[in-house]
Amino acid sequence: MTVTSSGQDTGTGYGRPASSHDARLTEVGPETPMGEALRRYWHPVASSSALTSDLPHRTRILGENLVVFRDGSGRPGVVFERCAHRGSSLFYGRVEEDGIRCCYHGWKFDVQGHCLEQACEPGRGLRRDVARQPWYPVEERYGLVFVYMGPPDRKPPLPRYECLENLADGESLFSEVPVPGQNVTGLVGDFNWLQAFENAMDPVHAMWLHYTHSGPQFEGTGTIGFPPSYFDPYTVSDKIRYNITTDHGLMYRQRWQRDQPDGTTADMDWCFEVQLPNIIALPDFVEVVPDRRHDCLIWIVPSDDTSYRAFMVVRAQSPDRLTRIVLGIKQNGKLFFELTEEEKQRFPGDFEAQSSQGPITQHSEETLATSDKSVVALRRMLRKMVDDVEAGRDPINVEHGQAQLRQVKSGVFTVSPGLTARSTAVAPSVADARVG
Amino acid sequence: MTVTSSGQDTGTGYGRPASSHDARLTEVGPETPMGEALRRYWHPVASSSALTSDLPHRTRILGENLVVFRDGSGRPGVVFERCAHRGSSLFYGRVEEDGIRCCYHGWKFDVQGHCLEQACEPGRGLRRDVARQPWYPVEERYGLVFVYMGPPDRKPPLPRYECLENLADGESLFSEVPVPGQNVTGLVGDFNWLQAFENAMDPVHAMWLHYTHSGPQFEGTGTIGFPPSYFDPYTVSDKIRYNITTDHGLMYRQRWQRDQPDGTTADMDWCFEVQLPNIIALPDFVEVVPDRRHDCLIWIVPSDDTSYRAFMVVRAQSPDRLTRIVLGIKQNGKLFFELTEEEKQRFPGDFEAQSSQGPITQHSEETLATSDKSVVALRRMLRKMVDDVEAGRDPINVEHGQAQLRQVKSGVFTVSPGLTARSTAVAPSVADARVG
Amino acid sequence: MTVTSSGQDTGTGYGRPASSHDARLTEVGPETPMGEALRRYWHPVASSSALTSDLPHRTRILGENLVVFRDGSGRPGVVFERCAHRGSSLFYGRVEEDGIRCCYHGWKFDVQGHCLEQACEPGRGLRRDVARQPWYPVEERYGLVFVYMGPPDRKPPLPRYECLENLADGESLFSEVPVPGQNVTGLVGDFNWLQAFENAMDPVHAMWLHYTHSGPQFEGTGTIGFPPSYFDPYTVSDKIRYNITTDHGLMYRQRWQRDQPDGTTADMDWCFEVQLPNIIALPDFVEVVPDRRHDCLIWIVPSDDTSYRAFMVVRAQSPDRLTRIVLGIKQNGKLFFELTEEEKQRFPGDFEAQSSQGPITQHSEETLATSDKSVVALRRMLRKMVDDVEAGRDPINVEHGQAQLRQVKSGVFTVSPGLTARSTAVAPSVADARVG
Repeated sequence: MTVTSSGQDTGTGYGRPASSHDARLTEVGPETPMGEALRRYWHPVASSSALTSDLPHRTRILGENLVVFRDGSGRPGVVFERCAHRGSSLFYGRVEEDGIRCCYHGWKFDVQGHCLEQACEPGRGLRRDVARQPWYPVEERYGLVFVYMGPPDRKPPLPRYECLENLADGESLFSEVPVPGQNVTGLVGDFNWLQAFENAMDPVHAMWLHYTHSGPQFEGTGTIGFPPSYFDPYTVSDKIRYNITTDHGLMYRQRWQRDQPDGTTADMDWCFEVQLPNIIALPDFVEVVPDRRHDCLIWIVPSDDTSYRAFMVVRAQSPDRLTRIVLGIKQNGKLFFELTEEEKQRFPGDFEAQSSQGPITQHSEETLATSDKSVVALRRMLRKMVDDVEAGRDPINVEHGQAQLRQVKSGVFTVSPGLTARSTAVAPSVADARVG
Repeated sequence: MTVTSSGQDTGTGYGRPASSHDARLTEVGPETPMGEALRRYWHPVASSSALTSDLPHRTRILGENLVVFRDGSGRPGVVFERCAHRGSSLFYGRVEEDGIRCCYHGWKFDVQGHCLEQACEPGRGLRRDVARQPWYPVEERYGLVFVYMGPPDRKPPLPRYECLENLADGESLFSEVPVPGQNVTGLVGDFNWLQAFENAMDPVHAMWLHYTHSGPQFEGTGTIGFPPSYFDPYTVSDKIRYNITTDHGLMYRQRWQRDQPDGTTADMDWCFEVQLPNIIALPDFVEVVPDRRHDCLIWIVPSDDTSYRAFMVVRAQSPDRLTRIVLGIKQNGKLFFELTEEEKQRFPGDFEAQSSQGPITQHSEETLATSDKSVVALRRMLRKMVDDVEAGRDPINVEHGQAQLRQVKSGVFTVSPGLTARSTAVAPSVADARVG
Repeated sequence: MTVTSSGQDTGTGYGRPASSHDARLTEVGPETPMGEALRRYWHPVASSSALTSDLPHRTRILGENLVVFRDGSGRPGVVFERCAHRGSSLFYGRVEEDGIRCCYHGWKFDVQGHCLEQACEPGRGLRRDVARQPWYPVEERYGLVFVYMGPPDRKPPLPRYECLENLADGESLFSEVPVPGQNVTGLVGDFNWLQAFENAMDPVHAMWLHYTHSGPQFEGTGTIGFPPSYFDPYTVSDKIRYNITTDHGLMYRQRWQRDQPDGTTADMDWCFEVQLPNIIALPDFVEVVPDRRHDCLIWIVPSDDTSYRAFMVVRAQSPDRLTRIVLGIKQNGKLFFELTEEEKQRFPGDFEAQSSQGPITQHSEETLATSDKSVVALRRMLRKMVDDVEAGRDPINVEHGQAQLRQVKSGVFTVSPGLTARSTAVAPSVADARVG
């Protein structure tokens, strides 16, 4: 059986130019445009609660191999992995009261890289002051250790976020992801950071990938969460306002209708904001409680050009909220680490969709459309950020002086509470989604 | 103990120039000379029977990552692996009645890459016509799906082969190799395709590697097959006519003698033809039935410069004939996937001999001899094929208009049936090989 | 909690130039400066006792892939791995009485690469003399097979070492390391050879890494071996004379004090010599018997730029002495191959310290100090060796004519036997170390 047309074939793969990625947006090593821009911000490097004084940890941020540790007096430190003396890894070092000590010859450095002792040298190192271990400033806040890897004279104050302050009675901040081996230095993804970050400004993948392609994946869908109509891929685009510029980034809003216990239908808005350079303010997609103050931030921190680490903090009564973020999407009813290869193919999720874009997606091959408006806008903002840094200007969200409390606009909000008569025409299957 | 000679050593490895491979013969990516030449031919990409509408399959041909699938209406399709929208792999796509649908945002493409729907776009994609998924023409014949990856205006008709047509009663075509995971998209070899293809024009390796080096490896040797004298390495070269140019490629013939049940000895010819660019017409090396019409073709399809996929079709009463091709050679009495590392070393077979030539053999280091005559001739024909394409000429075996039925000259033929008195002088051990 | 200082941060990792290694000292491929220099010397390639005529072995030296074998008449041979005919690996070859035979077409080569037979060629190869397999001269001595990979007209005699000759009654030479798979072609390390070689001229790592960092690692420490005072990192530097140039290399001496059974304390010297280009004369670090003739040599032979193979010979009554060299250091009381990943981090040893310096350490980032004096001196001698070869001069330890017996200066020597009254002030914990 022949499937070719009778005329000459059009649109075949033959003769296409080689594909390429947008290096300016994706590459993060020292002296790259995006790498320099990202070095103007504080980035999470460890969970405070998981980072104890027991052992140092290896990590990799913006293409640099680092060791993160907490000294015996409680100070967190981030230093180059290789010892300044002869290059052995400080991962094998010993954490002491006032610093970290290399295993090979016993040189000890404090959290600012000062050499405190050269164990086997005369006088424990008469010239130890010249042996400075490269280090980076760190600060702890909200249960995370943050690091600043940029030019010292441009170091901004560590940002503050309203959603992570003013805790109510019984609330705490949780930052330790429940994945063995990734609880200290973040959840690892093995593809370019921007693929993960852009996903937050890609509203419609929720409708297709997470609901339609292989069945509903959001835990709680149709019960305590969103009605099936929320996920209708064929009407979603009409319900979205894609590009809403905020003080600190970008937001999209999706209008939806919620059945109320009194038989009315409320107009709701799902509002999802990202803040530059790499922060995702993800509303609760499992348990919908309207008009609640936003409660979580996620950072997508590039390890290098082809991998990243995700960090997160939630303000909650219990760590369950954080577990819902990491494990709230099921594929074939299972958690991502429980899937067989065939199940991954039959029931793909975020990891399959994003990692299969490649180590760095090939931007030259993309065909962007309406639903990519926020992705396009986000890239535009990131390009401006890079341009500003190159031009010597302060990029977005870099402050001077005292840190101001930043607002986050994410959340699920009631637009018209109970005023709208239930319209089965607009959302015919809403009834199925009624609570209890 | 010293083994060096008293004078100055000659022939040592010191100071030899760096080795190299012949890129013009071996490299197959877009815009390489051989890559362009091979793109003028149809190549198998899947077994028709194994390719169902259940799931799409990843493959790689001529350095390009592709997805092959069969839509719900039965049409096979080959498209670029990355979705034209944002690059997620269509391996995670869903096969539908009329095409394949990406998991990420639900864009659907037919087998010619036309975008049929952009699920989450307004109007399901008002401008979906601009979103063409790169595709390649496919045709099915003889139980294989073939793809054409060359310039559309040069697409030849799919070749026809006499040996795979005009089936007798009870005969079928079989194309599904009995190796789990390789039954759809071919048997994978992890070295350059030419090492596997040349092996077919290397008659004497059968005598040394498969018979002498570590004992007979051909199933059936000495019983229903060839007599031991056939495999005598020390006389084989005299029995071979190396370079016989055929209409479509190259053939060698090996004269041998077969004991007949009536006590006479027949003169036989083993005729083995390859057709350009990459087709092997391997006669049955296990069950010798003289003067039978040839019944099988094997294609060595380059995946990239350092790996290939082999496809095959046999015309037979049962799939056993195909199994004999894939599993007809034993090493230490075992199948290739049953061997320990030490057994591989002690009882090497084709895989060890060819893969240890390296990812691409180093042609600059070869010392070719008499028994390599057909390898040399084959390379010469391949070079002419490349030259012709570069010069804008049609290369060998590219037709225009209707495909003509091609003849294959391989087989085991009786030259003098029973006329020769048995000569124990020529083949002293023939008696051992008598049937039954 | 903030740990940054109030002023501008100094010494951070930002803006540091890219790091680099010293290629002239470390890279060993053909035509590199160090590669050419090392090609003026004989290097061990196999243990004589472990190299039988049963099977050939793959190895890699100075960036070249080689096969080492012993033919059926007992002659060791080293040839290029790829067969001169069509490139199949001679690892799959068959060892015969007079050479090695390729599995693919039966070409046979002797230990000097002469082609003895081309099995399937007319007349078994009428022009087989042109098919020379690249080979290298080998000689056996002291239980090792040595190879010379340099220019034939510069081949020196194989060196002789006094410490491995004139065996006493009951003594033998042992060269077969008790590690499965590494007993023939050496103990493999997967980082640059110089990191392992330099370690021998790094006296103080014994005090920190092997004694202080995670507890004593030398078997026998404090009992039959050295007293704890020997390992005091804080006083060690004063006891060492770092740079003592010897006839063949470099030595350091460490003064220490040993309690004698008669209550006196003897002044002792630990003398450790390395000889160029890559020989370590390691004194017994487990069982201290003063003033004994030295009994072992270790060669660090580069496989390529990022891996090496260690060979060793000991003159001893039993192979236990050799086992003590390979397995005499315990980590957490275990052998290196018994450790979990966490134990490696908590109880690092030589492998962790040296391999974590990287595939090739980054010399541009080092901060060398007093205790690195011998490392610095060794590098200087190696640079001179490279300079000499480049300038056409004979480098150190290359002889002409008959090999002269070389002395090795390593050992543990009594400087003042029993003359010194025991001084608890100098070595307060010496009492704990008294023998039995």
